[in-house]
This record gives sequence, structure tokens and C-alpha cells, in this order.
Amino acid sequence: MRIALDAMGSDRAPSVDVEGAVRAARRFGVEVVLVGRQEAIERELARHDTAGLALPIVHASEVVEMAEHPSQAVRAKRDASIVVAMRLLREGQVDAVVSAGNSGGVLAASLLSVGRIGRIEGVSRPAISTILPTLTGRSFMLDIGANTDCRPEWLAQFAMMGAAYAKKVLGISEPRVGLLSNGEEETKGSQAVQAAHAILKQLPLRFIGNVEGKDLTQGLADVIVSDGFAGNVAIKTAEGTAAMLLTLLRREIKRRPLASIGALLAKPAFRVVARVLDYREYGGGPLLGVNGVVIIAHGRSDALAMENAIRVAVEAVRANVVEVIRQEIAAVQALVGAAPDASPEA
Amino acid sequence: MRIALDAMGSDRAPSVDVEGAVRAARRFGVEVVLVGRQEAIERELARHDTAGLALPIVHASEVVEMAEHPSQAVRAKRDASIVVAMRLLREGQVDAVVSAGNSGGVLAASLLSVGRIGRIEGVSRPAISTILPTLTGRSFMLDIGANTDCRPEWLAQFAMMGAAYAKKVLGISEPRVGLLSNGEEETKGSQAVQAAHAILKQLPLRFIGNVEGKDLTQGLADVIVSDGFAGNVAIKTAEGTAAMLLTLLRREIKRRPLASIGALLAKPAFRVVARVLDYREYGGGPLLGVNGVVIIAHGRSDALAMENAIRVAVEAVRANVVEVIRQEIAAVQALVGAAPDASPEA
Repeated sequence: MRIALDAMGSDRAPSVDVEGAVRAARRFGVEVVLVGRQEAIERELARHDTAGLALPIVHASEVVEMAEHPSQAVRAKRDASIVVAMRLLREGQVDAVVSAGNSGGVLAASLLSVGRIGRIEGVSRPAISTILPTLTGRSFMLDIGANTDCRPEWLAQFAMMGAAYAKKVLGISEPRVGLLSNGEEETKGSQAVQAAHAILKQLPLRFIGNVEGKDLTQGLADVIVSDGFAGNVAIKTAEGTAAMLLTLLRREIKRRPLASIGALLAKPAFRVVARVLDYREYGGGPLLGVNGVVIIAHGRSDALAMENAIRVAVEAVRANVVEVIRQEIAAVQALVGAAPDASPEA
Repeated sequence: MRIALDAMGSDRAPSVDVEGAVRAARRFGVEVVLVGRQEAIERELARHDTAGLALPIVHASEVVEMAEHPSQAVRAKRDASIVVAMRLLREGQVDAVVSAGNSGGVLAASLLSVGRIGRIEGVSRPAISTILPTLTGRSFMLDIGANTDCRPEWLAQFAMMGAAYAKKVLGISEPRVGLLSNGEEETKGSQAVQAAHAILKQLPLRFIGNVEGKDLTQGLADVIVSDGFAGNVAIKTAEGTAAMLLTLLRREIKRRPLASIGALLAKPAFRVVARVLDYREYGGGPLLGVNGVVIIAHGRSDALAMENAIRVAVEAVRANVVEVIRQEIAAVQALVGAAPDASPEA
């Protein structure tokens, strides 16, 4: 298996990206194609023991920056690392693409660049996904940022794609699907969410109805469906709240000598909790609905997160997730009535 | 000052509602009019020392239940406690209304019941608000549930109303106003949020731009503006995440004898943090934009939360918040171009 890694993606690129690739190549026995500025990548590679590992470099002279407008950037920068990586996927030279870059840039490169792989037939909009830690394990959530204003049928497709992914890649036999809303009753929600609720009840899914923000961490649903605006707000709020709580605890403990001793004794417990919350363990989430395996990692990724993002790619390729989604979408397309949108813009 | 309390509002009504009223009457020296089933309220009052306190009862035979459709319920139940309380406000018999009942019911009673007080002139939509604890203090957030689909001008009005409240009631001289979005750049957000951003830049506000979910708990903004859908998701996600983290910590600590001793030593630190996160300290949030002081408390309120919700009402009345908002809205109405919507439905 060959995975293309956008080596210029993360906030600390290419250092952690390359280190993650080295670790993944060793751990999973896959070839990782490093796409980006050759010289910079070679310099990073030299810092690691890469004997026996398949880590070819494909040079790309440009980078899509965080502040750039995604669709303009991927059109203008034909030699950007994410565009070149995508082209390798389009040409069948690799089985997947992994990037910790601008997620809008990854999406735009998938759909609009010279390397575009496009959408799976019948899919209206691709969705960005993530794993959310819960009290009982983890949930899979989409969309978390690709589509701010969503039509009801798009939300229904997110549900189908998410359920397919949960089944085939996460190994959950009958995933419970919840729709993020501002109340449990089906009369709650924006107009789009209420309409999506009505569609979801008709689909061959284990639809458990609306879930609220407070339910996200309770593990009520295996798949949580949202538009990209509220979904993004939700995961970032969860991240911020956890960070605040730990900071407050640390601050109050530091102020008290006895509490400091106590915290030392309780450290192993804290460590377990910190690990549950650590996004690096989950690596990255697939961009579902595009015509290939594309994994988006957190921009603040370190080498462990990059290694795990490559693991997610390996699992998705093995599960043949693109083909599975193609079949699911085709099966329900008539039911959902979602014709692919004319505009390729996401 | 006289505050009408919907004594049938909370999940444990009328027990905690009445107890909160007794405590507030003593602590703040105000009269609290208890609205609800006379017999049930008398039974609760008998359990407390109420000597010298002004706690009259106004009988109301019906209750708006949590599961009911708010606008239908307040129209059908003309003798519901929240409707009767609102009528007292409309008739000038009280200075404010406090309720821990169905928040949609409180909103509907304000706008659609026989006791309706209506909107402040020029306000398109009232907004439900709350206090959000942050690393550095607290933020004021609105809307958190009254309006799921929002026009840009409504969001702009929320900003004006929130800033006025933060200034006059919370005592923040130049409140920083942030717009909740899925990215910091002004090109990020739903169409409504992007359009609201453009309006907010024009208004006489200390507008700091978009804030993301992860910023909510950082205290970057004093006032956070959102539509009621994403706002509701955000506050409930924060609540759920904090609860999960504390549950996980407790679970992992319990498993380890040494950690349990440590936790005991660290308990004072934990207690401070728990108090920061405790919504009961904040009592409730005003329903801003209606023609009177209306405070919505958490449905799961206990007596402390009810007492504090009444405190919030007292502060809002003292600050003359309705008049202040009336002036702010009038001053910028031409600028915002928000004509009051023809439909009174919220």
C-alpha cells in the first residue's frame, strides 16, 4: 500500500509530518510518499533511521497556507504539495492522501485543483469528519467544517456515509445515528435539521433521533450528523472546555501545597483522562464523499498524530471505504432524492 | 421591587422554586410573588421560616409542560403559571418575571399569550442569553435557543442588546463583542454569519471579529453572539464536556488507592473549579428584546440557582435594562436596517 503524505501540511511542517511518516512506515509496513519541498524533506529524513523503509519524495514547490482562500489557492498553486499529492491519488499512483494542512485547502484540492479526484457519484457534498471521545468510547462526527449551510438531503447523505464508515472501518455492526440539534424533540432544530430528521426516519439506518450538545460526550450515538458550522463549533467548544477545565484545575492545585502533593499521587488517573481526550490518538478523520481515501489531520498535529492519521488512511483503504460509500449512496439515492449539485464548489 | 416567580417552572417545582424565593426575599429585601397552584405553594412555604418576608401567592391552575409545543401551549392554557406571571408584568403589578420552565414557553408567553408583553420597539427577535464561565471570568452569550434560523440583522441586534446588558448590568465598560463562527477569518461562517460580520463592523461596538468554539472558554470576548441553534449546541457541549471530564477523572481516581488519597488532598482545588463551572452561581439569563425584565433559569435549577436567578432579575430592573436596550436599538435601527418582522412568532 502507498500513502501520499502532504509533508508541508502541519503547523510544524515538515518536521513532525516527516517523523510521523517514518514511524508509520515502520509500524504499518506501508510506503509513504512524501510530497513537498524536496530539500526540506531530505533534511528531516536525515534526522531519522530510515533503513529499510519506503519513503520516496515527490517534489512540490508550493504550499497552501492557512490564511489563503482555499479554492483560489489550489487553482493558483498547481504545484502545491496538497495538489500534487491529490494528483498522485487521481492517477492511481497512491491509495490515499493524508494532510494536516488547511482543511478547506484539502477539500478544494479534492474537488477543484488540477489533481482533483471529484466526488463519488451521487454525493452532493463531501464532509469532513472526526472522532470524538465519549464517556463510553468514541463517536464519529461529520460534517465538522466543509459545508456551513446545508440542505436537508446533504445531512441525510452525511448520515449514510458516516454509518457506512462506522460499520466498515470502525467495526460497529449497527451504528446508532444521531442528528445534532438544539433539542431532543423532532420539532426542534433549524429548518434544515427538521427536514433532515424527516428524511432520516425513512432511511435504512438505526436513526436514534436528535442529540443535543450535552449528549455528544455521553456516547449515545456512534455517528453524529451535523452541518459543518454547528459541528465545527461543537468540537472546538469541547476541545476548549476540556482545556479550560484542566488549566483551572492545574492553577488551583498549584496554589495549594497539600493539593499539589495530592495531584502528584493522582497523576496516573489524570494521565489516563488526558489520553482519552488527546486528539493525537485519533490521528485524523476522513474526508467522506470524495472519490478516494483522503485523511485530514489536525493542524496542530505532532509526529504521533501524523502516525495515527496514516493508520486511519491504511484502515480506510483496507476497508475499501470509497466503494462501500458508493454502493450505499447509490442504494438510497432515489429515496433521498439528492441530485448532485451542479456547482463543484464546496 | 416586586418579582413574579413562576413557581411551577423547574424540574422539581414548586419545591426548589419556592425555597429560592424565600432565600431571595430575605437576601435582597424584595417581594417575590409566587405564581402557581396555591395549595402546592402554601405547602412548600409552610416548610420555611417566612416571618417578615413578602411572599404573596397568585393562583394559576395550569402549567406549560416541557414536552408541549410552546406557542400552542401558552395560547391554550390561559391560566398557566408563566402566562399569569407575564400578565402581572404586563399590567405593571411586578417589575420582572423569573421562570425555570420550558424556555420556549417563556418566550411564547412573552410574545403570544394573553399576558404577552411583546417586543421592544425595533427589536426583530428576542434572544435567550446565558453566562458562560471562562478562564479569566465570564462571558455573556446570546442567542442560545430562541431563534434557530437567524437573519444577519437579528444577529446584529443580539450584539447591540448583549453589549448594552454587559455594560449596564455586568458593569463591563467597553464590552468586547465576538461573533461565533467556524473560523477566525471574516470569510468563515454560514452566509448569515458572514453577512452579520459585515454589519457588525459598521456598528458602534467594540467588535473583535469571529470567535471559534475553542475561544469561548478563553474569555476573548465579553459578549458572544450566535444564532440560537449553534449557541445552544455550544453551551450544551461545554456542559457535557465538563461533566464527562469530571466523571472520567472520578472513575480513574476511584480505581487507584493512592490516587484516591491524592484526590482527597486536592479536594479544595477541585471544589473551586466545580464552583466556577456551576451554572447555579449564575442563576439565569435574561430574555433580551422583550418589553420587560424576564429571566430564564436552568430547568434543573435548585434553590441556590433560583435565588440567583431572582438576583439577576433584581440587577436587571435596577439597571433599567429594558429602557437601555430600547435606546440602543432606536439609535442603530437605521444603520442595521432591521425592520421588526411582521410575524410575532419566534
